[in-house]
Amino acid sequence: MRAVVLLSGGLDSYTAAAIAKNEGFELFALTVRYGQRHVQEIAAARRVAAAIGVTRHLEMELDLRGIGGSALTDDTAVPRGRDLNAADIPVTYVPARNTIFLSLALGWAEVLEARDIFIGVNALDYSGYPDCRPEFIRSFESLAALATRAGVEGARFHVHTPLIALTKAAIISRGLELGLDYRLTHSCYDPAPDGKPCGHCDSCALRARGFAEAGVPDPLLVS
Amino acid sequence: MRAVVLLSGGLDSYTAAAIAKNEGFELFALTVRYGQRHVQEIAAARRVAAAIGVTRHLEMELDLRGIGGSALTDDTAVPRGRDLNAADIPVTYVPARNTIFLSLALGWAEVLEARDIFIGVNALDYSGYPDCRPEFIRSFESLAALATRAGVEGARFHVHTPLIALTKAAIISRGLELGLDYRLTHSCYDPAPDGKPCGHCDSCALRARGFAEAGVPDPLLVS
Repeated sequence: MRAVVLLSGGLDSYTAAAIAKNEGFELFALTVRYGQRHVQEIAAARRVAAAIGVTRHLEMELDLRGIGGSALTDDTAVPRGRDLNAADIPVTYVPARNTIFLSLALGWAEVLEARDIFIGVNALDYSGYPDCRPEFIRSFESLAALATRAGVEGARFHVHTPLIALTKAAIISRGLELGLDYRLTHSCYDPAPDGKPCGHCDSCALRARGFAEAGVPDPLLVS
Repeated sequence: MRAVVLLSGGLDSYTAAAIAKNEGFELFALTVRYGQRHVQEIAAARRVAAAIGVTRHLEMELDLRGIGGSALTDDTAVPRGRDLNAADIPVTYVPARNTIFLSLALGWAEVLEARDIFIGVNALDYSGYPDCRPEFIRSFESLAALATRAGVEGARFHVHTPLIALTKAAIISRGLELGLDYRLTHSCYDPAPDGKPCGHCDSCALRARGFAEAGVPDPLLVS
């Protein structure tokens, strides 16, 4: 059975893809080049796709910089040392990003005659993004049935979110059980020109906390 | 009040945008360059945006050719002389296209603090596309409330479909009342290299039937 997996090059999507593979799906990986400042993500997505073994890795260009509204796609500074438990949605939120990504995945899934889409969203350590919540995912599934020829013909699309209820530590532990090499991944929102993680953005902080709680060192930081 | 309008360069989206303008909205036009074979659409979208008077016209690149699955984006022949009353969905269907376009419009609307999106879909002469139906539009509005920071904060997005229940003839009559110049538009799925419409694809046939039923000549065909 075919599945489309959204692959960013980060730790979460790598693990979600590996879980899909482990469940027996044939993987079609989709990476969106959306003008993110951290182009190291794309290189990481290629490494991860090769390591997992995907049937096809499609990189799609979509320049969201024209829309703006996010520190990940415009010149707003990425926050450092932000309180991870703060209730507000941070400036790294990209408006409607997961809606856009899932729509692209849906279009490709329909062409591939796949009914399964995997996305590595996480509702616990989700940095407050609205489009990482279970109710958003269920609503997208309802939309997918109405939006497509396949849906009109009776197909139901399933958006799998195997990480949605896991802590970052639990995600890392699950990935390590599956033999994943997290050196391949990239998480930092604001890396140095040589690709080294900044260590201070939300994404670095969540990753560090996850490895600490999982009781293992981050292989990216071990040389 | 600001509104994002999806503008393809065709007759329908031109009319929908003009209706939005007539209702008093400040227009932000979004044209997606999605690898469609008929690049004349883009030139038409620019002419139409200038004629209506939009505050900004954003052209966004998104190459859907990697996904394929449509005669509009791959090398499948565009059908000529197809029965417009046939019940099947034609090969010009682009998988999940309106879901993708509305998602992009939603992201931009959130950044602009707009709550209104206009799309020129039509459920009568809709060529059988599933993502032109009212139930699809209502489902997208539900999704939008869950997908965005604005939605979490209580905003509700409204997807306006002023043409959804109109015949092509009624759309043309409404546009002519508003003073629109349909010479600016482009409808053909499969134009000649010089931009001349083929006269035989679904889109040409629907346009011809519309002008005939409206009792006016198509200005594109009058020289």
